[in-house]
Amino acid sequence: MTDFLSDYGVVFALLCAAAAIVYGLLTTRWLLAQPAGNDQMRAISAAVQEGASAYLRRQYSIIGAVGLVLAVLLGVALEAQGANGLQVAIGFVIGGTLSGAAGFIGMNVSVRANARVAEQARRGVAAALSVAFKGGAVTGLLVAGLALLGVAGYYGVLLLAGVDEKDAVDALVGLGFGGSLISVFARLGGGIFTKAADVGADLVGKIEAGIPEDDPRNPAVIADNVGDNVGDCAGMAADLFETYAVTAVAVMLLGVLTFSQTTQAAVYPLVVGGVSLIASIIGTFAVRTRNDNVERALYKGLITSGVLSAVAFLPVSHWLMGDLSFRPDASSLLKGSGGVPTATELWLCTLIGVAVTAGLFIITDYYTSTRFRPVRTIAHASQTGHATNIIQGLAQGFQATAAPAILIAVAIIAAHALGGLYGIGVAVMAQLSLTGLIVALDAFGPITDNAGGIAEMADLPDSVRNVTDPLDAVGNTTKAVTKGYAIGSAVLAALVLFAAFVEELRTEAAKTPGAERITSGSFDISQPEVLVGLLIGGMMVYLFASLAIEAVGRAGGAVVEEVRRQFREKPGIMDRTEKPDYGRAVAIVTAAAQREMILPALIPILVPLVVGLLSYKALGGLLIGVIIVGFFAAVSMTSGGGAWDNAKKLIEDGEFGGKGSEAHAASVTGDTVGDPYKDTAGPAINPMIKVANIVALLIIPFLV
Amino acid sequence: MTDFLSDYGVVFALLCAAAAIVYGLLTTRWLLAQPAGNDQMRAISAAVQEGASAYLRRQYSIIGAVGLVLAVLLGVALEAQGANGLQVAIGFVIGGTLSGAAGFIGMNVSVRANARVAEQARRGVAAALSVAFKGGAVTGLLVAGLALLGVAGYYGVLLLAGVDEKDAVDALVGLGFGGSLISVFARLGGGIFTKAADVGADLVGKIEAGIPEDDPRNPAVIADNVGDNVGDCAGMAADLFETYAVTAVAVMLLGVLTFSQTTQAAVYPLVVGGVSLIASIIGTFAVRTRNDNVERALYKGLITSGVLSAVAFLPVSHWLMGDLSFRPDASSLLKGSGGVPTATELWLCTLIGVAVTAGLFIITDYYTSTRFRPVRTIAHASQTGHATNIIQGLAQGFQATAAPAILIAVAIIAAHALGGLYGIGVAVMAQLSLTGLIVALDAFGPITDNAGGIAEMADLPDSVRNVTDPLDAVGNTTKAVTKGYAIGSAVLAALVLFAAFVEELRTEAAKTPGAERITSGSFDISQPEVLVGLLIGGMMVYLFASLAIEAVGRAGGAVVEEVRRQFREKPGIMDRTEKPDYGRAVAIVTAAAQREMILPALIPILVPLVVGLLSYKALGGLLIGVIIVGFFAAVSMTSGGGAWDNAKKLIEDGEFGGKGSEAHAASVTGDTVGDPYKDTAGPAINPMIKVANIVALLIIPFLV
Repeated sequence: MTDFLSDYGVVFALLCAAAAIVYGLLTTRWLLAQPAGNDQMRAISAAVQEGASAYLRRQYSIIGAVGLVLAVLLGVALEAQGANGLQVAIGFVIGGTLSGAAGFIGMNVSVRANARVAEQARRGVAAALSVAFKGGAVTGLLVAGLALLGVAGYYGVLLLAGVDEKDAVDALVGLGFGGSLISVFARLGGGIFTKAADVGADLVGKIEAGIPEDDPRNPAVIADNVGDNVGDCAGMAADLFETYAVTAVAVMLLGVLTFSQTTQAAVYPLVVGGVSLIASIIGTFAVRTRNDNVERALYKGLITSGVLSAVAFLPVSHWLMGDLSFRPDASSLLKGSGGVPTATELWLCTLIGVAVTAGLFIITDYYTSTRFRPVRTIAHASQTGHATNIIQGLAQGFQATAAPAILIAVAIIAAHALGGLYGIGVAVMAQLSLTGLIVALDAFGPITDNAGGIAEMADLPDSVRNVTDPLDAVGNTTKAVTKGYAIGSAVLAALVLFAAFVEELRTEAAKTPGAERITSGSFDISQPEVLVGLLIGGMMVYLFASLAIEAVGRAGGAVVEEVRRQFREKPGIMDRTEKPDYGRAVAIVTAAAQREMILPALIPILVPLVVGLLSYKALGGLLIGVIIVGFFAAVSMTSGGGAWDNAKKLIEDGEFGGKGSEAHAASVTGDTVGDPYKDTAGPAINPMIKVANIVALLIIPFLV
Repeated sequence: MTDFLSDYGVVFALLCAAAAIVYGLLTTRWLLAQPAGNDQMRAISAAVQEGASAYLRRQYSIIGAVGLVLAVLLGVALEAQGANGLQVAIGFVIGGTLSGAAGFIGMNVSVRANARVAEQARRGVAAALSVAFKGGAVTGLLVAGLALLGVAGYYGVLLLAGVDEKDAVDALVGLGFGGSLISVFARLGGGIFTKAADVGADLVGKIEAGIPEDDPRNPAVIADNVGDNVGDCAGMAADLFETYAVTAVAVMLLGVLTFSQTTQAAVYPLVVGGVSLIASIIGTFAVRTRNDNVERALYKGLITSGVLSAVAFLPVSHWLMGDLSFRPDASSLLKGSGGVPTATELWLCTLIGVAVTAGLFIITDYYTSTRFRPVRTIAHASQTGHATNIIQGLAQGFQATAAPAILIAVAIIAAHALGGLYGIGVAVMAQLSLTGLIVALDAFGPITDNAGGIAEMADLPDSVRNVTDPLDAVGNTTKAVTKGYAIGSAVLAALVLFAAFVEELRTEAAKTPGAERITSGSFDISQPEVLVGLLIGGMMVYLFASLAIEAVGRAGGAVVEEVRRQFREKPGIMDRTEKPDYGRAVAIVTAAAQREMILPALIPILVPLVVGLLSYKALGGLLIGVIIVGFFAAVSMTSGGGAWDNAKKLIEDGEFGGKGSEAHAASVTGDTVGDPYKDTAGPAINPMIKVANIVALLIIPFLV
């Protein structure tokens, strides 16, 4: 097995990826065979599908244009420096295309699953859960499967073409960049779309016109439903595609730079990814409920897949990494205790990755669930008004960063002691082995949310909403919890990218006459250039978040005006004699989201480029500044936002005054403030962190 | 002059400090000679004085107890390590006592100036401005004067006692710690007090009982007025006392570690501080207005003092630092371009410090003044409700960090290129040369605010409020702008402290067998321990802010209950037949503030201690993590809070719907959210950053 895996590890990974993709296709077929409800339901679902397609077409054509320009620039500039620019550019196109494909397919499944979930909800929770979860699982398995397919496939093709292992891995960095680029656009565009539509629909519909949420008379109601899909589903899919691909590449790179056994080192992360894809497929079958405990059923799937992966990693580690030695120039990558890590130690690193995932789940759940103190204190503070609700939410968001920070700190120290910087990479790779099921849990949210909307708009009996509403509530929790996972893994992945950046820079500098001054001790925080880099990195995060939040405000304002215009010009809408023009509202939010996403998306590309060309030391500081400041900003935003959301839910469930009370009004304010926090700025920081780090990796030839 | 200054620099600094203190005493006498108004005004002012004294007595007795324990622990622990623990402990007591004295005297003057300003307001803006500004100037000059007196005096005494220069400077670190400790308690206790009283008074008084602000029927009205003094006046005084003292000590330490000419290097920052004190005294005389343009008059004083200082720094630099050479082991402190800085280069560094102050003023003014886009967009967003006001305020707060970050980054690079790490220190020392006038501008705020309150409570004619209201508005702007200065100088001072920490650690390690592994390249960000330190440092900031904000909520709740109780049990209050018990409200906020300040204040003391004993690398990362993350958190909070405040003012001045509109209600929410941001958590981060860094300096003997 040892020889087989090191010889055919790439093939093994490709087979696992193929299995995930086949699972996705079969499940899609099963899903489409489910009844899609009555004509009205089909019509609504079709409108959402149409809006989502229109959005994605526009999004991809803009990103495609930006991407093409970047691919050409990248290829030409790197070739001019004597680096293998063509291979990087091809990798970039592959990464971008696959990331886009994952989002596209996943979203197309989600927007078809919605009506089917609503229809199954007539038959009870178990039936509705099955369809909703499988809709999410398609996206999840495709994300992980396509990412592994891209990385392993392109790597294999390059090897077959006679490229050596190190150069092949370098070309994979381009692939990671392609995925990251799509991801930052998808997170920003989707995040701006979903919250602009949401805020716009609520402000005019609920507050000015006094019609309930999801009322078909609201011209922005379809846009709101489209937004759930493009934000949570396509955005999260692109985000985790990118984290997965980028981490695999960074760990391969670190491995090739660290160990003499380059073949095994390059293949190990791919095989780890492969076995966990199989574990994820098995995990999906564990999601079933007899007693209607949806949350438990979902977590059962996750735990099954996590335990299976953890067990499988042991033989894989021994087969591939049983007999390692360091490259002579890799001394800075020593593990904490000195010496070469053993296979068992690397396996323990994978366990750390799985444990971090579990820890992040528990911590985020504590800070965002209605059962615990943080959300309850926000609901309680709502009784004294809007301001106290906001203050308490901000305070809880801040506090929610402490435990994840300590968890990640402990994980870094432990993984480093066991396996050096490479060990940290292995831990992150193991953490990402759960990506398939995590994305499934996340995509589950918008599907059930949409199903509830369709039930409302199609006037289905109350019994249907009584099934979709609790499913939706679970979706809110899983959405919050998966965001905690996404930011945690993003930060760890970015640290691995940074380690790869430092090693690659050091290795390249050692080869270049006159550049020997660049050593692994070059990024000392007592050096002014590094400090300045840290400041600029932190500034990028705050500026990015500020622009993203402001963009939601502006795009939301455009929706408000459009909805008001339709109410004014089509007075028949309110008494249902005229139909609102849903398409126009979708078109307006789409255009606004595309316009607004460009400027913030350029920050993580251009700033590292400019700073890097001025000073590589400042660039190093910048990368860590982005990671550290980004971590705290993103966690406080996503946890704070989730807590505000559920504080409102708690009050709507009758506590602290219940619906219609002053406390409820205050909690609605908190929820609205939390929206751009948790669904736009916070999640968009994840890919932003990694784009900055991968841009740094790409421009190394210009730094030495 | 050259010889005189290096021989008698300490005496010169002491003479300048004495001049500032004499100015303070004479101005106080002049102030107390002004008429204090009618009996009612005197009675109100006396109630505020009594409350403030009660608060300070309690505050100082608690800090005194904590301080005594710390002094003994510090002294014993350091002596046990063979360091000069007794001298450090004595320095600690001196620093704490002087910082406390500055706050105590300043606040006693402020609470006596309030009624006198109200009385002078009968005679017009110019007369009221004169009294209010001089009240602030007493605090300002005393802060800078006592800080210089303490540092130069204790240093001189130690030299006279035969202690060598390096050991004397080490003992001064203890003095800095004493000041810092008082400062973090003063900022937290004062910040919690002022906002709890404010929120509590408003929630029950304005909203529930429907009585206007500053109405004497509100039992919390005196507490509210006391709060303005203990928060803005005593808190800011302690904060800048500490920044001033700590920076002087850190620059002395860097100088002694850097240059062979230890005498000149140690004396230079003291002389710089001395001449700028004289410039500050002259500056106070430039504050006068003929055309009632208050802001212009205040800034004229600041500019006068800045220009005079900048000019005077040139000969001082040449006299003292004209002929420098490096210590043989100080190579890591080389200036950016290599070589020893010249006197002119060091003078240019002082200009950078003055320029940073000017830049921070302009930037903060842009983000918090009603004249510019940020505040106007928040006011505009208030029209669509509470949530959009909050979202816009948060976005603007985030954005307000970008320009200061770039400004500070440029300053670091420029000062380093001219004078190395020592040059950065010189720039900060020059920046702090304006402390006297800055504190005066800040203390001006609560004095005029109180004057307005007294005018309201004592039923003075409208003409008086027409004078105090615009003065109060100017006070709001100067308060916001001086906060931008305080955080900017705190960050730069902390960076200098960090540089001193690294150099001292390196120097001590070089002397200690077995500790040679500690070099100035030890804090590379690619090392896991440093990364973990950065994470923990960031976490400290978020946890600290979260605890501080929550504390305001809890203490405010206690005030609400007390005010409700008094209204219930003394029904005569509302028809003015019964007098509310002001003292009880003050006592309750005092107790709550003292209780709540302890836990957050322990964070910057205990966390660095524990982390440092585990790993000095992690400690280095922690210090930078606190500085970087703290900078962004503090700037976004203070600027965002100031912008919310002024957005409300803009609406109250009649724009976007004016008083009583929906937009006004939303803007009040924003202002209330901004209160704990800008007056509690944000400003308390300044001393917190420095306490962490100075604790690190103190525990160096335990690290090597």
